[in-house]
Order: sequence, then C-alpha cells, then structure tokens
Amino acid sequence: MLKSFNAKDLLAIEKLKRTNLINSLSGYKSVNLVGTKSMAGSPNLAIFSSVFHVGADPALQGMIVRPDTVIRDTLDNIRNTGKFTLNQVHQGIQDQAHQTAARYPQDVSEFAITGLSEETINGFHAPFVKESLVKSALELVEIIELPINGTHLILGKVIAVHLDESLVTESGRIDLITAKTLGVIGLDTYVCPETSQTLPYAKP
Amino acid sequence: MLKSFNAKDLLAIEKLKRTNLINSLSGYKSVNLVGTKSMAGSPNLAIFSSVFHVGADPALQGMIVRPDTVIRDTLDNIRNTGKFTLNQVHQGIQDQAHQTAARYPQDVSEFAITGLSEETINGFHAPFVKESLVKSALELVEIIELPINGTHLILGKVIAVHLDESLVTESGRIDLITAKTLGVIGLDTYVCPETSQTLPYAKP
Repeated sequence: MLKSFNAKDLLAIEKLKRTNLINSLSGYKSVNLVGTKSMAGSPNLAIFSSVFHVGADPALQGMIVRPDTVIRDTLDNIRNTGKFTLNQVHQGIQDQAHQTAARYPQDVSEFAITGLSEETINGFHAPFVKESLVKSALELVEIIELPINGTHLILGKVIAVHLDESLVTESGRIDLITAKTLGVIGLDTYVCPETSQTLPYAKP
Repeated sequence: MLKSFNAKDLLAIEKLKRTNLINSLSGYKSVNLVGTKSMAGSPNLAIFSSVFHVGADPALQGMIVRPDTVIRDTLDNIRNTGKFTLNQVHQGIQDQAHQTAARYPQDVSEFAITGLSEETINGFHAPFVKESLVKSALELVEIIELPINGTHLILGKVIAVHLDESLVTESGRIDLITAKTLGVIGLDTYVCPETSQTLPYAKP
C-alpha cells in the first residue's frame, strides 16, 4: 500500500529507523575505507558510505563527515596533513572494513585491530589498505562547512590511482563486478552486484 | 599486474576513458531521476548519478550539477522554484531513464519523449515519476559553487517521502533489492544487486 510521509511524519519516526529510511532514499551508497595519518604518525582507518564523484577534470572526490562521531580523527588528520586515501571495500574484506566503525580509543590503530595491512606507496603520507583492489591518493582541496546540519564536505583532488590493470575495461571504466566491490543500503546492509549492463550513449 | 597512475599519467589518458576511470573510483553511484518544473510550468526530467545522502536529521540530500550540460534546465528550475523531486530508478524503467540523458531541445518534455508518466502529489510544484517506486520531495536549502571545477552542489531538504509501505523493513531501511533499484558504474553501466547482507552494529 502506498505510504506518504510528510515532514512531520518523518520527524515522528523513531530515530534509528528514520536514519535508515533517509539513508536509503538516494539509493545505493559507495563503501570506502579512508586512510589518514596524524602529524605525529598515528594511522587511522575508517569506513565511509559518503564518498562521491565530483568531477573528472580535474579529478575530484567528495565526502561528508560528521564532526561528532568516531570519524573525527579522520577529519582532524585531513585538516592537519592535507592527505587521505580512498580504498574500495570488496567482499573479501567486508567484515574487517565494517569493524572499523566501532568506537575504539584514539590511540588504537584500526589496522592493528582488524588485521588489515597498512601500506605506504611512493612515500604518500596517508596509509593505503594493502588488501583493497582499487586505491587512490587524494590531496585536500577544501573543507566546506554545511551549517544546516553541522557536517563538513571534504573535497579532495585525486593525485594517484593504484589498481590491477586487468580491472580497467576497454572504455576506461573499473570493473567493480570482478573486483567484488561492495555498495551499502542504509547503515549496515551490504550488496555485491554480480552482473552489469552497459547501455549505449543516449541520443535524441 | 599492478598499475599506478600519477597525476600526470591520469591527464595523459584519453578524455572519455579518464572520465570513466575517475567516475568509478568511489564505487557504485546512485541512480535517480530528478523532476523539476519551470516557473512557466514546463516539466523537466533528468537522470543523475550524483545524488548522495547528507544527513538524516534534518533529512538532507545533495547532488552535484555541471552547469555546462543538458542538466542546466534542472539547475535553473531548482534555482527559480526551490523545488525538486528524486525518483529512484529501478530495472523496469532503466532504458527510459537512461534516455533522458540525451540532449533534447529545451521545449521538449523528457516525460513525453520517454513515456514516463508525470505525477503531481499533494500540489508539490515539481513533478514526480509515477513509475518510480521510491520518491521524495525536496526544497532547496542552498546552492554551493565549487570554484575548482565550476560545478554546483545542490543541497535539498526532504519534505516528503512516497513509497509502498511493504518496501520499508523492520529497521526502517528501504528494501532496494525488492524494488530492483539500480546503481551505476562510470557513466553507462548499470547494476541491479540481487542479494544483501546486514551486519550487526560494530562494537570494539
């Protein structure tokens, strides 16, 4: 049966249910591990479902960060060092990636806790996840505050991409199906699509 | 074989290939039809892969719009009327949704061309897509220009949600698997996940 929620109805829904509902409205979200390191050298790894494509030329990615969560370390490290990595999450590291969302004390490394391997590539300050199959290195462009809900939009420029060349298709697309890259619905429900369909360029 | 692209390597890739590669870096993207109407009453419908969740309280969605494309009508209509709709794209309307990306003359309605049905709900100024199974009505909060690449971030507040109540799970999540909601890789490659796995809340 068709159900309509107006603004008042939405507010009346119990908080966690509303969070899940609103988090599902746009469709599938991406799943990435964001690697950062403090100035003092402490690594941090956190799972994000809010990374999105901003532009290809220059190559830009964005992500939304709530300053009041466990993810605060990520925001601080990016602000202080200007560097972060994106590491796509695939089915083989799903459980470990999900576990990085737990609220560990600040001096605990999510790498050590989850068993994911810290990897340095070409001396880039922020750590990569060795097990991830599609990784990129980003430099901070700008942090834009969104006063309406106190979140921050982190805008980063892609300065390097690391992946197996067999994953790059003829048209340049990355074969996320073969990589078994995950998507997520809401906060906790992962999907791993098994097939894809490429449509021709749309003409009138 | 592991391949690394630095910033210079990325720039050397042929434009369409680079666009596809960079568009795949964050993982799966969402697929929505954005409905708008001009002040004069001309409806517009355009497919977007750049809609993303911004926050649940207040309920906010964002999307990136390039001002130099066919999508310009959408930006103008949102700026002038402050209203737009998000309509999730499912497998049953994939071809019609994809076709809205073609560059039709400005006086052509994408509803008429594709056969998708324009729907008015509760007098909201912007049109919904009748065939879509998960729809939301949004009011413009802010348009933020991103000078680094000339795009615009449109920030909208969700003021209504319309969907079949059977699609809302016990935890509030929308069952995108049953709805056959699509995701997209790069510019043109659609996925329709068939299974999902819900993980428990992560604790240390």
